Amino acid sequence: MTDKLNLLLCSSSTVHPLGYLEYCKDDIAEFFSSCEDIIFISYARPGGVSLENYSSVAKGGFKNAGLEIRGIEEFDNPLEAITNCDGIFTGGGNTFLLLKSLYENGLIDPIKQRVNEGLRYMGTSAGSNVAGPSIKTTNDMPIVYPPSFEAFSFVPFNINPHYLDPDPHSTHKGETRETRINEYHHQNDNIVVGLREGSILKIENKNITLIGEKTLRVFVKGREAKEYDNNSNINFLLD
Amino acid sequence: MTDKLNLLLCSSSTVHPLGYLEYCKDDIAEFFSSCEDIIFISYARPGGVSLENYSSVAKGGFKNAGLEIRGIEEFDNPLEAITNCDGIFTGGGNTFLLLKSLYENGLIDPIKQRVNEGLRYMGTSAGSNVAGPSIKTTNDMPIVYPPSFEAFSFVPFNINPHYLDPDPHSTHKGETRETRINEYHHQNDNIVVGLREGSILKIENKNITLIGEKTLRVFVKGREAKEYDNNSNINFLLD
Repeated sequence: MTDKLNLLLCSSSTVHPLGYLEYCKDDIAEFFSSCEDIIFISYARPGGVSLENYSSVAKGGFKNAGLEIRGIEEFDNPLEAITNCDGIFTGGGNTFLLLKSLYENGLIDPIKQRVNEGLRYMGTSAGSNVAGPSIKTTNDMPIVYPPSFEAFSFVPFNINPHYLDPDPHSTHKGETRETRINEYHHQNDNIVVGLREGSILKIENKNITLIGEKTLRVFVKGREAKEYDNNSNINFLLD
Repeated sequence: MTDKLNLLLCSSSTVHPLGYLEYCKDDIAEFFSSCEDIIFISYARPGGVSLENYSSVAKGGFKNAGLEIRGIEEFDNPLEAITNCDGIFTGGGNTFLLLKSLYENGLIDPIKQRVNEGLRYMGTSAGSNVAGPSIKTTNDMPIVYPPSFEAFSFVPFNINPHYLDPDPHSTHKGETRETRINEYHHQNDNIVVGLREGSILKIENKNITLIGEKTLRVFVKGREAKEYDNNSNINFLLD
């Protein structure tokens, strides 16, 4: 990990009952205040929406934060967009489709390099998931086969967005989220954070802070999961 | 598809409030009544349990149906187990881990060939998921990277086990199961069936029947999803 990171990793784009990006619009406005050329990565295509339509939605959300943003699909050469921009926002949707598209467009290494040098990067849901070492803790359906599950590795921990506590009244026999993350730890070693809807992780240099009212659930392999609130020092996550 | 298939595809191994395989024990007893050497494929390891411990659980369930079963991990050469058995039961757990282990042990083609020639195959959850062309409609977390998402293709449709209807009271913004399946259809063409807990698909030769009280939700690309009950003719699924 470099000591130049500037990341805003949001669990979700929308929190009930607010509109798209409304719950975090002040955070966005502050995070990107010095930026003039922000690129939206639309590849995750929630619900199968077109890249153009997804970018329109993102533009509306950024407009509410007083910012302009351009969709990566507007560029003949997406690599050029990444080389010249001063900020990136990667939207949610299907994580497998997002990662596959990033590989197909040759953008994994270029984005990784620029963000590690300090380029501001914001993600929601799938866009936050790819900030970790792999997408192995996504909740999404594997509708396409990416050439690898390895992602940007900006941070050393894996993210589980939309983290949900088990419903004590459920009789459903599908696995709970916590069971799934424990299965992950039978096969993998790094920390997983369960980011509840409305929670944001902000990383500046070597400091990480939790924004939002909900606590962060941290899964360290071989230990009981622990909760941290927005007053906790959670810098150990970056070690 | 061959006309010699004998499949029992169960959504889940356990239905509330019954014990493991209890809800389907008569179906299992009948399905395997002519079999004397049934192999249990334990690779999906639910909750990260060991292969041996998982096989013990399966043996208990089969004992209740008056049957014996041997875990694939008891054989030095798993291929030999497949070559000599007269029935296979593949248990649920993590679909990615199951598929990766099947590839690593070189069992995809041998199992495919024997089942296509009439060998009796039963699956629960992940074990049913792999009976379709791919695991692209699993609900599981991608905790390991398999060399492909392609599975046995015994049947031409994809299966979504533990199918769940949207909760009308939920404020959670994660995708519903139906949204995910629609995303699948933006990238893939074949039919997906949502198999609710307690539902079983039985395939004999070129006939498919639904067992259980719950209806089957069938997703055809570009059309509204439709429900079929256990009196419906659903043979079109095998076309």
